[in-house]
Amino acid sequence: MMRIAQVAPLFERVPPVTYGGTERVVAYLTDALVELGHDVTLFASGDSCTRARLVPAAPQSLRLDTACRDTMAPQIRELELVSRMAHRFDVIHFHTGFLHLPLTRHLPAPCVTTMHGRLDFGELAPMMGDFADAPFVSISNHQRRPYPNQNWCATVYHGLPPRLLPFRARPDDYVAFVGRISPEKRVDRAIEIARRAGLELRVAAKIDAVDKEYFDREIAPLMDQPHVRYLGEIGEQEKAQLMGAARALLFPIDWPEPFGMVVIEALSCGTPVIAWPDGSVPELLEPGVTGWIVDSIDDAVEALAHVDEIDRAACRTAFEQRFTAARMAGDYVAVYKRLRESSRGCLEARTA
Amino acid sequence: MMRIAQVAPLFERVPPVTYGGTERVVAYLTDALVELGHDVTLFASGDSCTRARLVPAAPQSLRLDTACRDTMAPQIRELELVSRMAHRFDVIHFHTGFLHLPLTRHLPAPCVTTMHGRLDFGELAPMMGDFADAPFVSISNHQRRPYPNQNWCATVYHGLPPRLLPFRARPDDYVAFVGRISPEKRVDRAIEIARRAGLELRVAAKIDAVDKEYFDREIAPLMDQPHVRYLGEIGEQEKAQLMGAARALLFPIDWPEPFGMVVIEALSCGTPVIAWPDGSVPELLEPGVTGWIVDSIDDAVEALAHVDEIDRAACRTAFEQRFTAARMAGDYVAVYKRLRESSRGCLEARTA
Repeated sequence: MMRIAQVAPLFERVPPVTYGGTERVVAYLTDALVELGHDVTLFASGDSCTRARLVPAAPQSLRLDTACRDTMAPQIRELELVSRMAHRFDVIHFHTGFLHLPLTRHLPAPCVTTMHGRLDFGELAPMMGDFADAPFVSISNHQRRPYPNQNWCATVYHGLPPRLLPFRARPDDYVAFVGRISPEKRVDRAIEIARRAGLELRVAAKIDAVDKEYFDREIAPLMDQPHVRYLGEIGEQEKAQLMGAARALLFPIDWPEPFGMVVIEALSCGTPVIAWPDGSVPELLEPGVTGWIVDSIDDAVEALAHVDEIDRAACRTAFEQRFTAARMAGDYVAVYKRLRESSRGCLEARTA
Repeated sequence: MMRIAQVAPLFERVPPVTYGGTERVVAYLTDALVELGHDVTLFASGDSCTRARLVPAAPQSLRLDTACRDTMAPQIRELELVSRMAHRFDVIHFHTGFLHLPLTRHLPAPCVTTMHGRLDFGELAPMMGDFADAPFVSISNHQRRPYPNQNWCATVYHGLPPRLLPFRARPDDYVAFVGRISPEKRVDRAIEIARRAGLELRVAAKIDAVDKEYFDREIAPLMDQPHVRYLGEIGEQEKAQLMGAARALLFPIDWPEPFGMVVIEALSCGTPVIAWPDGSVPELLEPGVTGWIVDSIDDAVEALAHVDEIDRAACRTAFEQRFTAARMAGDYVAVYKRLRESSRGCLEARTA
């Protein structure tokens, strides 16, 4: 049994009501660690729902708290709370970007940071150099490429509770797109693939304020086609329905996405995925077994014609072997144990 | 001689090319501390100009670095650089909002934070409670009102180099407004006051992206009046000219501005100020000596009719006595000395 702190961002509750990648992963990881018998403390917004001990760093998630004009203050408070309680933990696991890094050097417990975002922005380089020795976890091998010499402890793929998106053996006759409407997600490709394949496309997607103009200008006209059905932003349960009944999930991304969460959501349902080979995709999909990796609309249409050759049960099996929350928690516990051992080593060396 | 670190925000260079309150104050303070014979290290953007030792935390100021998408990374790097060099300083003076606060508890030198912004946002309360014991400096007594029981070391009013905005005995026949175009600055009041007084109004003001709609809708039509001359965003030298030749500066604010920098800029020129009594204004102006404090357009027009009764030399004298950079630096040195003494006290108590 380890005493583990999880430190979540405060923008969404843990788990988020709808969208919110990082907070969702923290939720699944935290509950799975409790399930494994660990003593887990979760630092998160006060409206979070968790099986761990919750330390609320803000009364509610910042996204919902429209009266909150200074979002830095609660985040700084969260770090101070972690700092004060640090001596109670065997390991502190941060999911808060870079914000906490200077502090971690001074805490009395070993710290590890999961990088949730893309790392290929040049402006990160000096800071990554300063923290070359800080223990980091990548969420795909591709993500860490810009910094091969960082102190990477492991790649730990995200995982989901196995009953969240149940297996469905027989799909309906449509394909699905799930994600944000933004230039790098390329819903326009999905619309064109479905049109040429003669299939209905159901789109479940959030439109962020920054992407509103892109949506109005580029996507809304395409959405008017009769084969497209736009569902807006949907909840967990509707997503399970939508994905489970799809013949395939289309994932035609055009950016180095560090982890394609919807890919493993589809596999949980037994739904194969047709994806472009960017970012983490080649690590998540096995072509011919759980879907197809393509790099053109032509190839995607061709893959869709062969999608019935994919065994949906094999997709679910791949999910159960590689992408459950329990597997993720197990991987992290291995990281925590190594950190604790090496930190003991340091302490002994210091006092010898 | 003390070894002093100044930690500036990275958004503008130190000093800023045009607008940028905090970085400008840090610039004047830093150079004045060097002038007093102290060993000063400035953490700031690499394009800064200073008489101190510069530690560049980013190659250039973030406002100019349009390629920089993640502005947190350089700020975190800055904290790490401060943390690594902390043992070299007698005192570390932060101007970086709240970002550094959890770290300061772990640094081997006494730390002090000047609060540069308004503190009357409810969301700050829990964090301010966590840091009730952290040494803070307020920039006006009004600013600290929401938190009277914080560990305030002093109120230190901002100061300017005395030759920056030279005294001018005889003004031209116009009044000036200098600041941002935003609802709380109320340039609309200035326009109406000047109209009713039959005087030309020269407006030197920046329009932030968030205020563009407000400008287009509310202000642009008023600016079309023949008595208004809009100069856009101007540099230091043009500002000295504009303010020095004004019969009065109008400062009709409608928000609790923690320190009215343009008020002391006007006084440096010998230009009296007609201001609303919000925020720091009653602490900066002496009615009848350096200007008038009013709370209606009527009273402002009336005050303007009597502005010739104000002795411009007395305005300059008030500036020289209360608002020079040397006075500001002296006040801060007194704070630093007290911090060093009390921190020595702590060390002695600990080892006794």
